[in-house]
Amino acid sequence: MNPLPAALAPPRRVLMGPGPSDVSPRVLAALAAPTVGHLDPYFLKIMDEMQKMLRSVFCTTNELTLAVSGTGSAGMEACVVNLIEPGDRMLVCRNGVFGQRMTDVAGRAGAEVTPLERDFGKVFSPEDIAEAVQRVRPKVVGIVHAETSTGARQPLEEISRIVHEAGALLLVDCVTSLGGLPVESDGWEIDAAYSGTQKCLSCPPGLSPVTFSPRAVEAIEARKTKVASWYLDMTMVRSYWGEERAYHHTAPINMNYALHEALRIVLEEGLEARFERHRRNHLALAAGLEALGIEFAVAKEHRLPMLNAVRIPTGVDDVAVRKQLLGTFGIEIGGGLGPMKGKTWRIGLMGETSTGRNVLMFLAALERCLADKGAKIDPGAGVAAANAAYADM
Amino acid sequence: MNPLPAALAPPRRVLMGPGPSDVSPRVLAALAAPTVGHLDPYFLKIMDEMQKMLRSVFCTTNELTLAVSGTGSAGMEACVVNLIEPGDRMLVCRNGVFGQRMTDVAGRAGAEVTPLERDFGKVFSPEDIAEAVQRVRPKVVGIVHAETSTGARQPLEEISRIVHEAGALLLVDCVTSLGGLPVESDGWEIDAAYSGTQKCLSCPPGLSPVTFSPRAVEAIEARKTKVASWYLDMTMVRSYWGEERAYHHTAPINMNYALHEALRIVLEEGLEARFERHRRNHLALAAGLEALGIEFAVAKEHRLPMLNAVRIPTGVDDVAVRKQLLGTFGIEIGGGLGPMKGKTWRIGLMGETSTGRNVLMFLAALERCLADKGAKIDPGAGVAAANAAYADM
Repeated sequence: MNPLPAALAPPRRVLMGPGPSDVSPRVLAALAAPTVGHLDPYFLKIMDEMQKMLRSVFCTTNELTLAVSGTGSAGMEACVVNLIEPGDRMLVCRNGVFGQRMTDVAGRAGAEVTPLERDFGKVFSPEDIAEAVQRVRPKVVGIVHAETSTGARQPLEEISRIVHEAGALLLVDCVTSLGGLPVESDGWEIDAAYSGTQKCLSCPPGLSPVTFSPRAVEAIEARKTKVASWYLDMTMVRSYWGEERAYHHTAPINMNYALHEALRIVLEEGLEARFERHRRNHLALAAGLEALGIEFAVAKEHRLPMLNAVRIPTGVDDVAVRKQLLGTFGIEIGGGLGPMKGKTWRIGLMGETSTGRNVLMFLAALERCLADKGAKIDPGAGVAAANAAYADM
Repeated sequence: MNPLPAALAPPRRVLMGPGPSDVSPRVLAALAAPTVGHLDPYFLKIMDEMQKMLRSVFCTTNELTLAVSGTGSAGMEACVVNLIEPGDRMLVCRNGVFGQRMTDVAGRAGAEVTPLERDFGKVFSPEDIAEAVQRVRPKVVGIVHAETSTGARQPLEEISRIVHEAGALLLVDCVTSLGGLPVESDGWEIDAAYSGTQKCLSCPPGLSPVTFSPRAVEAIEARKTKVASWYLDMTMVRSYWGEERAYHHTAPINMNYALHEALRIVLEEGLEARFERHRRNHLALAAGLEALGIEFAVAKEHRLPMLNAVRIPTGVDDVAVRKQLLGTFGIEIGGGLGPMKGKTWRIGLMGETSTGRNVLMFLAALERCLADKGAKIDPGAGVAAANAAYADM
């Protein structure tokens, strides 16, 4: 091949989209540490440490807690295909793209899927779930804790009680919430949860932390059929992460190094402090956006602190603003997905990205882009409101 | 969690096992480059460049050539689940652990699997395949080019002709061969091939290069059922890698950076020069091992240059020698898998690991370990024979 592509020289972005988020230089350095073998005693020790740290972050004592060797969507598939056998009934709560995805994944796994629908941006009430589980009698109920496509936060505690009273297992998508919002796996009795590394854990994308409750493990052990995916079969994956150390696949060594360091950073900060940081920066950003006349797409009580879905002001060109933010300032934000395409922006403040300086810089840059595109705004109002919000905290 | 695990400080190994292989500092530096978004124009350019470089390495013009976001086993699963629909007949050639794995993966995908068995370390003749395809009339024939568990190299050209005459598709495992041995995807009319990054491409594990011929793409497009795996569904994955850039899953950005640089290194050296380097170092290692009285587990004409499977000398403790190599010298080699466990060592000379200095260092270290464990060897004979072999080349 002639000529060869030039060597990599990625631009430095500020990642304020729906993920990936900014990555700490400590994590990038860990990523570049010397590769060792997947059965090297050193790597086995790292795996043990990762399992312990993942349990802390998931607030669980679940033995089966580990990082799947794929991105968050692989984690979703891992949870579904291990819990579902062909013909099993599954209720999937759909109020965004990731609920839709779970329906698709479950159907492919052979589940008899009943979707429970709500508009994008809305959440499910305990009554919604109670009615549906009585009607469907599912083996598994799947729900999204933090819908990355809509910015809505789903309360889970009451729903979990209802799901378990109906004898079902609770499967929760925590891709965007883990590390930025409380995920009380044991406290809320979640049976299976998956996340991604590139959101509030601020590690590059590539792995998916998962955790399975003892009840979920029982369901897996009681299967009559093999798990549809060899790669994601937890009965084999856990023999590699467990005491047997049975070779399954070659683990992504350096990605695991990176997650190890990212988890150390999360736990150094402490979960409570981290949640509080996400909350404060969200409130300051919200104050700034509102001062610019920009509305949220989600009711106040259900907004995610790490992902702010807002309506694009009337007359403002979605793509033009995002291009200017990226081209002039190197700031990435996300567009809308599904029915929200062209109508919303998704502004992420996840993990390392969630800082006061990013909030102020973004508001300042957004003011410029909006003014350049002819939007009527009160110059300086966004930054002033955010600074006032910080002063009040 | 208290106390936190210490920061990473992996030991520096020389990776002479069955993979991962040694990683160039250039690739580690690329891995640690700043993360950008998965739809960033910069990353889309990198993806295009990777596709071009992967086509060069696979010796193909196949449009559908890309890196699956999982390790080599995910690539195996991707090829199988996209080509197979429930009830399809598949012939799987099993002469090692990876042929066995493919049987398992195909069965889970709903294939009617017929395994064709040969002893570990043996290869299949064209006559073997001709008889089997006539008997089974399969949709897909799966075979392993370089069996990582046995060190055997499977000739493919003649077999490909027979498979196509019988109207079947040829699926080839190139995990260990790609970048170390010719893989003539177009020349041999391979319909689907998968590899891993951590063998002769010398990138950390985590991605799986795959390529599908136009005939394979037709078969995928003619499916009546959805691909069993959402994550590995090529009809969606290709819309992200193709012009549509449709969001599917968040690509492992930094792992793709690393593979980009690893491919640049492969093509800078040139495929022919790279194959020749693997061949020479293998021959020198073989001369050295034979001078120490160590026999290969595979007939000379079928030996892989990048993976040397040898019989452990009688009376020598498998684990004790490998522990001493790792503990005293930081050299990793592999033990045997399946029926070869405890009976063979697997000595890898893959990609960056395949150097003259590694061959000499390994032989010198092995002499010491064998002598320490009471084996009768001729001191210095291994190193001398390898040096003589190099002098003769």
